[in-house]
Amino acid sequence: MSWIEEKGPDRDVVLSSRIRLARNIAGYPFPTMMKDSDAREILDTVKRCFSVSTPFSGRRYSVTLIKDLPEVDRQVLVEKHLASIDLMQHSDVAALIMDDRQRVTIMVNEEDHIRMQCILPGFQLDKAWEMLDRVDDTIEAEVEYSFDDRLGYLTACPTNVGTGLRASVMMHLPALTVSKQIGAVLQTISKIGLTARGLYGEGSEALGNIYQISNQITLGPSEQDIINNLTVACQRIFEKERMAQQAMLKVSGKQFEDVLWRALGTLTHARVMDIKEFMALISQLRLGVGLSIIPGLTAENVNELMILGQSGVLGKRAGRELDDADLNAYRAETIRSRLNEMLQA
Amino acid sequence: MSWIEEKGPDRDVVLSSRIRLARNIAGYPFPTMMKDSDAREILDTVKRCFSVSTPFSGRRYSVTLIKDLPEVDRQVLVEKHLASIDLMQHSDVAALIMDDRQRVTIMVNEEDHIRMQCILPGFQLDKAWEMLDRVDDTIEAEVEYSFDDRLGYLTACPTNVGTGLRASVMMHLPALTVSKQIGAVLQTISKIGLTARGLYGEGSEALGNIYQISNQITLGPSEQDIINNLTVACQRIFEKERMAQQAMLKVSGKQFEDVLWRALGTLTHARVMDIKEFMALISQLRLGVGLSIIPGLTAENVNELMILGQSGVLGKRAGRELDDADLNAYRAETIRSRLNEMLQA
Repeated sequence: MSWIEEKGPDRDVVLSSRIRLARNIAGYPFPTMMKDSDAREILDTVKRCFSVSTPFSGRRYSVTLIKDLPEVDRQVLVEKHLASIDLMQHSDVAALIMDDRQRVTIMVNEEDHIRMQCILPGFQLDKAWEMLDRVDDTIEAEVEYSFDDRLGYLTACPTNVGTGLRASVMMHLPALTVSKQIGAVLQTISKIGLTARGLYGEGSEALGNIYQISNQITLGPSEQDIINNLTVACQRIFEKERMAQQAMLKVSGKQFEDVLWRALGTLTHARVMDIKEFMALISQLRLGVGLSIIPGLTAENVNELMILGQSGVLGKRAGRELDDADLNAYRAETIRSRLNEMLQA
Repeated sequence: MSWIEEKGPDRDVVLSSRIRLARNIAGYPFPTMMKDSDAREILDTVKRCFSVSTPFSGRRYSVTLIKDLPEVDRQVLVEKHLASIDLMQHSDVAALIMDDRQRVTIMVNEEDHIRMQCILPGFQLDKAWEMLDRVDDTIEAEVEYSFDDRLGYLTACPTNVGTGLRASVMMHLPALTVSKQIGAVLQTISKIGLTARGLYGEGSEALGNIYQISNQITLGPSEQDIINNLTVACQRIFEKERMAQQAMLKVSGKQFEDVLWRALGTLTHARVMDIKEFMALISQLRLGVGLSIIPGLTAENVNELMILGQSGVLGKRAGRELDDADLNAYRAETIRSRLNEMLQA
């Protein structure tokens, strides 16, 4: 079980809530400047924090060296939002510590010595922050963080200095996108220190009408202020999206339902499907399920399908190298078969 | 049972074979010039031929006055290719005589006094001619036809003079259409006295990639020559179409199958569908069934669906007036439900 399969609040609009903290250990240079021996010492130090009893008693943490991971497994971690692309680029010295529910992950020797995140299903920033704060305390009990009384936590990139906190909410905004209201929404949030990215971070397209809204500013406001600011903005966006969905349903009715049903028809019948089309269809399916137009499926089913259709997850599942044509055929086959299982369940 | 549900030879390419004879009764003006009393006498005369025993003993013939038929029933007869639009335009005096298997229909007081046709499933022009020839003999035993020793049978329009025979084959040519070879094919047949029309006769589009190929010339060659000429030309077209289908399958493979499967997906899921899209999807479904790519359906199933999706048939089934939006929603619903029944059978 991970955020992908678990139910969360506001699941009609929100896929996940995530808090990330950037931390560095005092006495060592930042990763760009450090020696391999520094990296090894840092990893040993962090690992030690998780070998003793933690506030999450009963949870087991696994430690994985990225260099031991096949390429396809690295891609799967990124596609599941459990690790960053950056971590994979530091593969020679980087490691990933993860709890068995895949909620808390600690990336070691990424851009900073420590990047820890908590990801939860649906809209629950507060809970994610509460969990991650305890993880942070656990580590801080064992190591001394690089901290400046005036600036706060020091980080490799100045955009993270201060709290080192990035809170982000992954949401599905099809109606705002189709009705072209999304531009105004994104403009508004940028004025209050928030920013929007696509499904896979900076510079990625809003594939499947999925947006990640997060705080831009880490220095100045407190952690709780950052989270509160984001929470209020997100709630406004959810309401706007829900209103836009109802408006589409009211104005277009049958035509609107038709589009959503056809998406299901294509997902259950196509023999070839590229990622772009797949994400567009998944968006329509998610909308159909959210509006109870398409019965027999849940938001979690749609999440599972979305992740299942990603290239790395498919490659891992196939257990062999897939070229583009193979991949598109395998995606269609895998999604079709899993979706039919879900519909018959 | 009619040609729509029965199996016929070459059913992968041919929907139906049809022979039509135009005849007029000596001593009466052609329908454009005749009085209502003439029309009544002609109908009585023709009816008499079918009230005595006929060469089709055991078959029951029904006689219907077009003026007694609701508009929607008239449209259904046209959509099933059992009567002409022209017959409906002479509705004040016209009648339709039909056998209970809907193979032989005799239109009375259409453009000519008598237009009889035999329509059979698949490619069987010879059998259709043989059956219709006997019907013609039956009538001729009772009435005197307008006949000129030099010209042959006289008809209201000079394009039918001579044999009064129109043989036509309704075929599905998706691969020749998509690969744009159809232009050359149609050019060739026009050089040997044949002509091509769409699904519903002259001037109608080749909706659903369906073409009716028929003889242009009725004067000069014998009935058997006309039929032989058309038979040879059709066989060449079938071979070309089959080769084009195999070529598409070989070149495009998975992509090609994908298109056909998606058609099934859309037909089983859409909530709104206009006639043009419907016919295009039916064409793809027919191709998928013909090439055994889509299992669980027969060519006859596809015929049934094609007729079921026509506007008049839908209106008749709904039992109420349907506006365009209603019609497109009702078409999607009806096709979806019948197609699912077929797939589960």
